[in-house]
Amino acid sequence: MRIHTLGPAGTFSHEAAEKIFPKVKVIFDPNFDALFASLESHPEDVGIVPIENSLHGSIDEILDLLYESKDVKIIRTHDVAIVHSFGAQDAKKVTKIASHPQALRQCRRWLKAHFPHAEHVPVSSTAKAAELAVADASFGAISSAKVLKKSGLTVIAENTEGEGNTTRFAIVSATDHFPDLKHTRMTVVLRPSVDRPGLLHALLTPFKVYDVNLTRIESRPSGERFGHYVFYLDFLGNSDDPRTQKVMEELRTLAEIKVLGEW
Amino acid sequence: MRIHTLGPAGTFSHEAAEKIFPKVKVIFDPNFDALFASLESHPEDVGIVPIENSLHGSIDEILDLLYESKDVKIIRTHDVAIVHSFGAQDAKKVTKIASHPQALRQCRRWLKAHFPHAEHVPVSSTAKAAELAVADASFGAISSAKVLKKSGLTVIAENTEGEGNTTRFAIVSATDHFPDLKHTRMTVVLRPSVDRPGLLHALLTPFKVYDVNLTRIESRPSGERFGHYVFYLDFLGNSDDPRTQKVMEELRTLAEIKVLGEW
Repeated sequence: MRIHTLGPAGTFSHEAAEKIFPKVKVIFDPNFDALFASLESHPEDVGIVPIENSLHGSIDEILDLLYESKDVKIIRTHDVAIVHSFGAQDAKKVTKIASHPQALRQCRRWLKAHFPHAEHVPVSSTAKAAELAVADASFGAISSAKVLKKSGLTVIAENTEGEGNTTRFAIVSATDHFPDLKHTRMTVVLRPSVDRPGLLHALLTPFKVYDVNLTRIESRPSGERFGHYVFYLDFLGNSDDPRTQKVMEELRTLAEIKVLGEW
Repeated sequence: MRIHTLGPAGTFSHEAAEKIFPKVKVIFDPNFDALFASLESHPEDVGIVPIENSLHGSIDEILDLLYESKDVKIIRTHDVAIVHSFGAQDAKKVTKIASHPQALRQCRRWLKAHFPHAEHVPVSSTAKAAELAVADASFGAISSAKVLKKSGLTVIAENTEGEGNTTRFAIVSATDHFPDLKHTRMTVVLRPSVDRPGLLHALLTPFKVYDVNLTRIESRPSGERFGHYVFYLDFLGNSDDPRTQKVMEELRTLAEIKVLGEW
């Protein structure tokens, strides 16, 4: 088994991978499509990918890839608290703020309060942002305090992300590497077979009838046209549970179901 | 009246602004928070911002800003077809693909088919991506064919975004500049006052009862904790319509409502 994660080294995905599987070799893939392709062709491997952030919701790109993938499924999840810091050569010289787009969004309130007129410059990783700030004093960087210090920048503020910033990472693979663990949650995608008013209401009815607790619902455009959706649901259950089976049976009369994983 | 849009010049927002208001002065704001702050302090101005893409759904950042803004609301919308192209100095030398993160996502399938192993490099604008490809032959750029040609790059493929890629732009302002136009749609946010199983089902019931057609529903984390949501809804109606008023009245018993606009 090897672990695939998005490069470069030092990202939060990489940190999560090392925390969850400290002894396993990590492979860096250049983009998420390549990562999923590696997992399809290497069922013995696993991937670590972000799927949801507590402040900003789903990482849509990963949901799309799980939906399209033939065999790769979520087999476990792992929640990691994400702490960002702000660093620069000299705060007074900063007119631009660089970071990964997700990190910029997570620190939006802090940036608004402290640098309301700065240009936001999205870059490929928080590590890259620190490099920019080292090369050019007009850049500040949002990154981990560790990376900022290592780069020789001054850490001007910590915890710039606001409270309770947690990212849920999924362990994904074409093989269930934990067959003996009891799964308590499922993630499914519903693609309605008809498009009519009141449809979402009808899709939620079986959960109400069989008292199955939905813990997440996200609607995403199907990509066909404005106003046409697929629905991503997390709920407490698993495929061996009779109530889950009943819900799935009724849903199948209204929508195509794809199981993205049990975890 | 002046029009605020996100800089730099040449973005799709800028193009949309010039198309909708060809004679009005355009001001470039450095980030969306600054843009909304400008509109709060200049009620005579309008902003042009992307709110939804047909392939990838809501632009969450704008929904969050509308939710937080005291006075700025959607007053009209305008759908624009988005066409991307791929350019480089020499396709054979390309190992990295630069573009705005949204453009990279919109061209994901094309990139997977043609450059499966290339690193995806998010940058602040599609114009910036073209600059990178001019400076370094290992970069390809996703941008408009016009920008690629003007930069001196070879346009290697057009329509790399897949079919039906449309972005809905909102005209936002603290003032309704079109008081005589009849509004046919509303966007609201529901913040449930209680958190219980079956809640979303209950929130959708009034729409079913009064036959008001929902055209979009998006759940977004409230930012409080995993599993706690607010709901963004578009529906056919307006605040003068008796059925809309009935729906709103029933919803108010279950949730706090904020109207993001009528359009």
